[in-house]
Amino acid sequence: MPLPTPIESPLSERELVLVRETDIPAAKLYAGWTQPDLLVKWFTPAPWTTTACEIDLRPGGTCKTTMRSPEGQEFPNVGVYLEVVPNEKLVFTDAYLPGWEPNPNHFFTAVLTWETLPSGKTRYTARALHWTKEACEKHASMGFAEGWGKAFDQLVELMSK
Amino acid sequence: MPLPTPIESPLSERELVLVRETDIPAAKLYAGWTQPDLLVKWFTPAPWTTTACEIDLRPGGTCKTTMRSPEGQEFPNVGVYLEVVPNEKLVFTDAYLPGWEPNPNHFFTAVLTWETLPSGKTRYTARALHWTKEACEKHASMGFAEGWGKAFDQLVELMSK
Repeated sequence: MPLPTPIESPLSERELVLVRETDIPAAKLYAGWTQPDLLVKWFTPAPWTTTACEIDLRPGGTCKTTMRSPEGQEFPNVGVYLEVVPNEKLVFTDAYLPGWEPNPNHFFTAVLTWETLPSGKTRYTARALHWTKEACEKHASMGFAEGWGKAFDQLVELMSK
Repeated sequence: MPLPTPIESPLSERELVLVRETDIPAAKLYAGWTQPDLLVKWFTPAPWTTTACEIDLRPGGTCKTTMRSPEGQEFPNVGVYLEVVPNEKLVFTDAYLPGWEPNPNHFFTAVLTWETLPSGKTRYTARALHWTKEACEKHASMGFAEGWGKAFDQLVELMSK
């Protein structure tokens, strides 16, 4: 390799996975992830809120969100979509900024899928993939499972209305 | 940021650019980059050769090539396409392995464009974007400009026949 080779961990040590099943159809869950007017209503686990969202839904397009803490501090975020399969799959990452500029502070890549099961239920799988084991452990300790789980519950509640 | 923040360099310090103009139409240059039977004929600066090529041309699809040194040693490579705009633009990276698995040994992202100029000539721009200044400098010292320039000349020669 052209650069000093970092210690490699198998993907299983660099991956966090959340799986949920729900009666909400895949198309509605996908809509919640891809329509800004819906996304702002569920994306951040309460008492945090999402105060702005812009989405350019195509490979290389960006998702810009602003999250607000309970104390009122705002945190802008930007991610880039890598793969878009309507109602089935969405892949995005912070490894790039707009225009495919590599982001030196890259952290993870999300692979989301929605499968319709024989029972009619939808299985949602969220995988967070990291370049290093250390980033993965950090993400776990930041509360990936709780945060993404709570956000999912908020999306299901929104779409149940 | 969730991880220790590396020293950030502006993109200009993490980018290598090669620009060439040619009479070969954009569609033919793009074909050379995307059709395996053509790619193997020009991709590696002689006396190196490309002995195998498989292409799955879509965002998330892979490009697998095998390069052979003059001494006969073979080097397999795999990259993932990020953006595919027929005859105009091709973006790929080694930051991912198949299935969006983050590659711990990621090195660079290539953004290639082909523009038809008012003169009828085609302007080819190859940008190599890196996550760190160090990787960019390494790439330059490995001979990016010479290697990619020579490969381009080989493609033009092939398409001139």
